[in-house]
This record gives sequence, structure tokens and C-alpha cells, in this order.
Amino acid sequence: MLPNPSLERTATGLALGPLPGVVHHPSSGPSAIPASARSAQTLGNASPTMPPASSHISADTRFQEAAASLGYSFEGELKVGGNYVPLVRDGATLYISGQVPRVGSTVVVTGRVGSEISLAQAQVAAKVCAMRALALLQRELGSLDSVRQILRVTVYTQSAAEFTQQSEVADGASELLHSVLGEAGKHTRTSVGVYQLPKNASVELDLVASAKA
Amino acid sequence: MLPNPSLERTATGLALGPLPGVVHHPSSGPSAIPASARSAQTLGNASPTMPPASSHISADTRFQEAAASLGYSFEGELKVGGNYVPLVRDGATLYISGQVPRVGSTVVVTGRVGSEISLAQAQVAAKVCAMRALALLQRELGSLDSVRQILRVTVYTQSAAEFTQQSEVADGASELLHSVLGEAGKHTRTSVGVYQLPKNASVELDLVASAKA
Amino acid sequence: MLPNPSLERTATGLALGPLPGVVHHPSSGPSAIPASARSAQTLGNASPTMPPASSHISADTRFQEAAASLGYSFEGELKVGGNYVPLVRDGATLYISGQVPRVGSTVVVTGRVGSEISLAQAQVAAKVCAMRALALLQRELGSLDSVRQILRVTVYTQSAAEFTQQSEVADGASELLHSVLGEAGKHTRTSVGVYQLPKNASVELDLVASAKA
Repeated sequence: MLPNPSLERTATGLALGPLPGVVHHPSSGPSAIPASARSAQTLGNASPTMPPASSHISADTRFQEAAASLGYSFEGELKVGGNYVPLVRDGATLYISGQVPRVGSTVVVTGRVGSEISLAQAQVAAKVCAMRALALLQRELGSLDSVRQILRVTVYTQSAAEFTQQSEVADGASELLHSVLGEAGKHTRTSVGVYQLPKNASVELDLVASAKA
Repeated sequence: MLPNPSLERTATGLALGPLPGVVHHPSSGPSAIPASARSAQTLGNASPTMPPASSHISADTRFQEAAASLGYSFEGELKVGGNYVPLVRDGATLYISGQVPRVGSTVVVTGRVGSEISLAQAQVAAKVCAMRALALLQRELGSLDSVRQILRVTVYTQSAAEFTQQSEVADGASELLHSVLGEAGKHTRTSVGVYQLPKNASVELDLVASAKA
Repeated sequence: MLPNPSLERTATGLALGPLPGVVHHPSSGPSAIPASARSAQTLGNASPTMPPASSHISADTRFQEAAASLGYSFEGELKVGGNYVPLVRDGATLYISGQVPRVGSTVVVTGRVGSEISLAQAQVAAKVCAMRALALLQRELGSLDSVRQILRVTVYTQSAAEFTQQSEVADGASELLHSVLGEAGKHTRTSVGVYQLPKNASVELDLVASAKA
């Protein structure tokens, strides 16, 4: 991967680079996880540099780049916590179970956002949740290029009493979906602050997507 | 607009008048926002009177009447808070992002319901959220008469610890949807109390709707 | 009903017995509500024994058995709390309004899980919510054998500050759906902890399902 010559930081941390022809989203230049966020979370050996996006790069390649940037692997079993399933397909519609920022068997960002966990850390958590959802779509469809559209995303943030930046937390997930999927990553979104999440996760995300015919 | 001769108040505040032929809902007579709610929120010059509904009035006209009654305009840009989109259409299905009671750039009802915010104020907030959702549907479809059905509504209320009237808050939105859309406004609903909402909004609402072919 | 010779308890309380040919779910042996949970909640005369499941038993029969086991009737009006509807059908897709553990006019499990309410009690609450949802599907479709798939379930648990077993609460509902519907009961799920629920309910559940053609 070539280092991204236009690397810069954004308010919401990691962005995986602009996609040509995406016109409906506020622009988000290529960036990296702020070093402060990474060190605070011990996020592993995430590369601070991102490759330049290109219209010739598949969504699957962008997914791998995003995983490398986060410093996590999303291969292997994607554990779910109970007797339900991670994905159900209904015709062209794909429902994904709520994802917490679990990597392997560890929930990597836990605690209340706004007191124990910073906004930047929560944004990384939202990205990890979104990556898990993408990994599930990829396994079901064979390729992320077969995603037609992300229809709906709900982001739950375990919030301190006075924390009101739930939208900014969710921006982490929205940017990642957009960065990996381009136009197909455009989605509607609901962001709420909740009192507790399973496993003390800081963020939980679910989504509904549609597949190409 | 003629004053409504049968004007009366209901437990949940504003209702935009009965619609002929609607049989499945508990009846809600025409009413107005209680003066107490209006004054407490400085909701502007909302008329306390509502016109009689008629089967010959389009849903778009009822929408305008509801806006006038609330004292708010829902023209102009409907801002969303992040890099996502307010509406995604998937065939006949329309997904609307979570709406807070924002008018222009101001969230008009903020704070915790049950302590800082009264039930009546929260019901107005729910109505404003619902109006924003309707405005988005109207822009996408050209006319609210093209809404086939509101399928699902989720209403999140930022709640004080002991507040348990989340359903009554959501009634504000349900009544408005019913008043503007008639039978097409019948919907399933989930009401929950959450700890915090983006921008300290008192209420957030999202919905899924279907469009006529 | 014959007593189940292989009766045993599971971590999540009631399970209605294994279904032949269900391979994707973690196995859950036949079991009964722990006596501690039943006595704590005065759940009525629930039988501690469950019949052995069989591939020749219809989903409707299993539903009746689950109702008997819980000690509740789900006949009669299924009250909803406001001016909305309990179920909307959109083609083959069925949306169910958020269900609290109401039986008749009483919400049978109220209060905050993790302080006032135990995990086992909350799991029973989740089962009652799921039974209400199934009762609504049964009335709409004529038979639960006409359910093609439960697509999505969201379980909201009114949680104490330090309670993080929302997934385990939701397992109560997941097990019940699986027990009654078999493969068709496989679903995606989101579990969150919220601050308050309508009527002070301990659990609220909504779902989306599809019907057979």
C-alpha cells in the first residue's frame, strides 16, 4: 500500500479516503486515527497512513485496508452472544444483528462514553462495529461489491449523563461505511444514547442492507 | 381556515382533526396544543384552532395545517447532523433517519422529560419530529398522498429516572401521523426511554414507510 | 401432556424443548422456568414440565404449550397503549409494535433489571413479550406455521447502572421464538439497556417477520 500523500486528520478520526463520484455526503478527506485515540485504546499496530482511494479498488480491498488501518483482523469466527444468528436474508434485504466492538473474544472498547471513554475512542468503537457488519455482509454475499445499499443503521452509545455527542460517535461508523462502500454506503441513521449495553460495550450498531440482484 | 366548531383538548395535546373512515384507532377528537404547553415552550404563534378535517382535503394540505398549528415552518433545508442521508428509498420502502425536534438550526425541545421537560412539551417535540419525517417523505414522493403506509415508528424519549410515560409522549407523533395521513398513517410503534439523545434533544423519532406504486 | 423425561434447567430459564432439524442454534435442552424465578414473580400455575417436542407438532401447538408453561393466557384482546396498531403487514413483511410483558391489563414484570428484577425474572419478561408478538402473528396469519422467518428482534431492557447482561435477557425471547417456530424462529437481534420503558416495564421487544407466500 502506498502512503497517502494527502493524509490529514478529521474530527471523527479514521476515514478511509474519498471515493470518486460520491456527491451526497459532506466531504471527508483521508485521515488516520488520531494518535491519542490509538494510544489510549492500545488499538494495536494500526498504520497511521491510508492508501489513496481509487475507483478501481474493490470494496473488498477497501475493507482490508480499513481492517489494517484499525489494526484488527475480522477474519475467523464472528462470535455472537446468544442463540440467534448474525445475519438473516429476506430476498434482497439483509438484516444484521447488533454488533458490539468485539474482536475475537474481546470487546475492545468498554465503558461509558463521556466519562470513561472519549469521543475519539467511541468513534473507533463505532468503526469496529461497522467492520463486523461489513464482514458479515461480505461472507454472505461473497463480495462487498454485491452490496447495493446500506438502508438503515442504528448506533447505540453507552452514554454518561451529560454526553450529547451520540451523532458524532455514529459518524465514525458512517464514515467507514461510506469509505468502504462508496455510494452504496449511503444510509439512514438513528443515534441514541443508552444506559447500558451488553458486555459493557461502549457502542452497539445494527443495520439493514440490500443486495444487488 | 374555518375555526373548528368542535374544538376540544385531548390528553396528548394537538390533534389535527378526525378523518372520515378511520376505524382502527381510538378516537381522538379535534383539539389544540394546551395553552400551558404552548406558553411553556414559546412555540410561536400556533393557532389554538384547527380546521375540520375532510375527506376532500389532501394530506399535503393537512400537513400545512399541522405546521401552522405548531407554529413552525418545515420548508427549507432539513439539516441532518452527520455524513449520512435523511432518506433512503429501497423499492417501495422508504427509510427515514432519526429526527430530533429541530426547526432550522435549532433543536426546539431539549432536556430530560419528566424533570426538565413536561409530558405536554415532549408531545409537541414528538409532533415536530414527525413533521420533519413527513416533510422528507413529501419531498421524496412529491405529495404525501403518495404515502401508502407508515410501517414502523420508533420514538426515543430522553427520560428522567422515574418517568414512565414514554407511550404518551409517542402518542403525540402517532396522532399527528394519523391526522395528516389518515389510514395511511396507521403504524406499528416502539417507545423507549433513553438516557441521552443527540443535541440533548428530548425526543428522537425514526420511521419506515411504503410508497404507492 | 407427558412429563418431559429429560427435563433440565438452562441458564436462561424456560426452553420449550429441542426441535428436530434445527442446526444453526446453540443447543438448548428442554427445561422449565427455575422455581426461584417463578416464585419470585408469582407467575401463576406454570407447569415445571414441558412436553417433548416433535416434528409433528404444529407451531400453534407449541405456542399453546409455551403459554401453559408460562402460566399465562394470550387469548383475548392484546391491548396496546396508544393510538397506533399492533401489527402492520406490508406484502409478506409483518411489523409488530413494541411489546411489554403485559398479560390482560397488567404488566407482569416491572422495574429495573439488575437491582429490582433478577436476570431470571427478566428472561421470563422477555418470553412474555415474545409470546405476545407470536399471538399477534398467529391472529394475522391464521397459524404460526405460516411464519416464514423472524427477521429481526430488538430487545430493550430497563437496566440498572451496572447491569450488562442484556444479551442474556434477550436469550429468553430468542429461545422461545426458536422453541415455538423452529428454523423459522431464527432471527437477527439487537439487545440494548435503556433507562426507562413505558409502564415501568422491565423489558420491551419488537420484531419484523415474513410470512409464507
